[in-house]
Amino acid sequence: MATEPVRVAILGSTGSVGTQAIDVIRAYPEKFQLVGLCAGHRFEPLASQVNELKPSLVAIADSGEYKNLRSAIDAPSVRVEAGPEGIRAVASMPDADVVLAAIVGQAGLDGVLAAVRAGKRLALANKESLVMAGGLVNSEAGRSGARIVPVDSEHASLAQLLESLGKNPLRRVILTASGGPFRQHTAEQLENVRPRDALDHPNWDMGAKVTIDSATMMNKGFEVIEACWLFDMRPEKVHVMIHPESIVHAMVEMADGSFMAHLAPHDMRLPIGWALGYPERLDLAKRLDFFEGLFSGHGRTLTFQNADATRWPALDMCRQAMKIGGGTPAALAVADEVLVKAFLRGEISFSSITRILAMVLEKLPALEDHNLEEILEAGEEGRRLATEIVRRT
Amino acid sequence: MATEPVRVAILGSTGSVGTQAIDVIRAYPEKFQLVGLCAGHRFEPLASQVNELKPSLVAIADSGEYKNLRSAIDAPSVRVEAGPEGIRAVASMPDADVVLAAIVGQAGLDGVLAAVRAGKRLALANKESLVMAGGLVNSEAGRSGARIVPVDSEHASLAQLLESLGKNPLRRVILTASGGPFRQHTAEQLENVRPRDALDHPNWDMGAKVTIDSATMMNKGFEVIEACWLFDMRPEKVHVMIHPESIVHAMVEMADGSFMAHLAPHDMRLPIGWALGYPERLDLAKRLDFFEGLFSGHGRTLTFQNADATRWPALDMCRQAMKIGGGTPAALAVADEVLVKAFLRGEISFSSITRILAMVLEKLPALEDHNLEEILEAGEEGRRLATEIVRRT
Repeated sequence: MATEPVRVAILGSTGSVGTQAIDVIRAYPEKFQLVGLCAGHRFEPLASQVNELKPSLVAIADSGEYKNLRSAIDAPSVRVEAGPEGIRAVASMPDADVVLAAIVGQAGLDGVLAAVRAGKRLALANKESLVMAGGLVNSEAGRSGARIVPVDSEHASLAQLLESLGKNPLRRVILTASGGPFRQHTAEQLENVRPRDALDHPNWDMGAKVTIDSATMMNKGFEVIEACWLFDMRPEKVHVMIHPESIVHAMVEMADGSFMAHLAPHDMRLPIGWALGYPERLDLAKRLDFFEGLFSGHGRTLTFQNADATRWPALDMCRQAMKIGGGTPAALAVADEVLVKAFLRGEISFSSITRILAMVLEKLPALEDHNLEEILEAGEEGRRLATEIVRRT
Repeated sequence: MATEPVRVAILGSTGSVGTQAIDVIRAYPEKFQLVGLCAGHRFEPLASQVNELKPSLVAIADSGEYKNLRSAIDAPSVRVEAGPEGIRAVASMPDADVVLAAIVGQAGLDGVLAAVRAGKRLALANKESLVMAGGLVNSEAGRSGARIVPVDSEHASLAQLLESLGKNPLRRVILTASGGPFRQHTAEQLENVRPRDALDHPNWDMGAKVTIDSATMMNKGFEVIEACWLFDMRPEKVHVMIHPESIVHAMVEMADGSFMAHLAPHDMRLPIGWALGYPERLDLAKRLDFFEGLFSGHGRTLTFQNADATRWPALDMCRQAMKIGGGTPAALAVADEVLVKAFLRGEISFSSITRILAMVLEKLPALEDHNLEEILEAGEEGRRLATEIVRRT
């Protein structure tokens, strides 16, 4: 059965997720066609992607680089845009079936909303959009019929499990966490952690912010919030288990007390391929055989431990923010950003990050989240409170 | 939505699987109704099941116990039968929606065939029927429309995984094996294993035959054959992994190289409940919370290792028997029975069991399996060859 290729637009094509997505698209020319690209300000790699892959539309967020990009592109048929409107144009381009949202951080929010409003299938690799604006994104998706398919490994695994189980009632879902570099530290050792220690994360090569968030478990707390929005779950049903080997990415506990788990090696091409090819599964294993690496040789040991709520206050804090709702998760996310920076500059201790977050959460007023402006205002409220507490420390 | 209860007949109601099935049925009176029972020769426990549960039909295999059973039953409306025809009457009773086949060994084969011919949904806990007569059982099921749902934990897990994954193409399926008590023995240590050592199996409390079969891995080899018949798989696609903790019962490797696994505690009520309630999953976890036991406290370690084909020749031998087809698996199964008995009597060494099986497999002529007579003849051929080799040893 020959089917039309899926037409893909990528927001954030020069980053890590973007380039791996292009690898997948290159490997399956019969299945995918790249129609749109955009990036932040690095025009050279973007231009070379355009020259190779010939999308119909490309945009660069930094308008100052428009001319450089334009002149580095040797395909005259490609439409070139710039600035926030350029990004929105790629996100909502009529040619695209799937939009991969891989711009990192708050900057990605605008493109996500544009894609969702345009009713696209959204392969979502931008965490902030659901953590900060889950309610808004979901209500826009409800209106337009956009379907959100997660790309990060835990949620992609969970989506695959839930997809498989159909209407089966579940008792809980479980996200795994590597536990970060300090999972065996005492409270006193945690107090003395320096930025350098925290940046030495065991499993993944990540940016400083995500690395610190992994060490505090705020990253996992944000993933709990995402899971609630993606799968319409109550926060107390989203459980976290420490699994340092990061092979099982998610599990679900079914009504009869048995579990289904999804296991995959550390290779982002799997969840990217799943989200782009959805609902069909690509035959990636023909190209990358994981079985040998996973289970052969001296075998494989997988360990699991409940994430202790006292040791990792971030998890319940995020669950609480989700229960309060409105702009609270957005405020918490921006406050966390402020505090991670303060820690990296040596202004506060490692364990102060979650200690101050708890204070922020307590002091936050009721915040709305009906539109992007309110959400960004809620974020600013979190920033203001966190900054104030750091200043007094 | 109120639905009619599922009407269940149990072949082998006084054994371990039978009594656990009755526990499940008792716990869900709104979902299940017991309509038929039968057992081998122990009339007293059978009569007390009948007096409590009031099925419409009961049979005892041993006709000599008919009168005892009859007079121990205080419910005059219950029809009482005996002998092979009695078993077949329960297996094919028009009142039953599901027949649980839990008679152990070759003795269960006749009831399985009767249930399949009557087009029942068959909850299958009798291994021998597929190992010895898989082709026949499947072709009868094809004719009558009977549906076979496996009850033993590995196959029930695998069925749940395959059910969930629908039409997804798979690269392989994986059955786990505890590895038995000798999984770390050297070849020399294996040679010196005594019956007593072998009967000390780490995870399950089983009969002597199954325990020795677990130690040689013939049990797992038979399960490979069962999986081929149940799921229409080629033997080389059914992989075995040593997993001493026996928490993951089965996995499937999908086209993209990721895996889905089914995890469950050691409690036969789970697969029994699944097979009886199929396709609905019972809310057993409300009664038996496994999560705490599985993942709390000091956490959980799961280990996996490929089953080494040199160390466990039983696996490839069973795969080969399945490839040869016809009556060969039946002959191998009966030869194994002979050899396990010879080992338990001290006539041959532990490692001679599989050594002699390999010789039997090599010497077997082409054998047919079109009907029960041919299958039993094939078994006798296996018995004859094995007995002869033991005698010469």
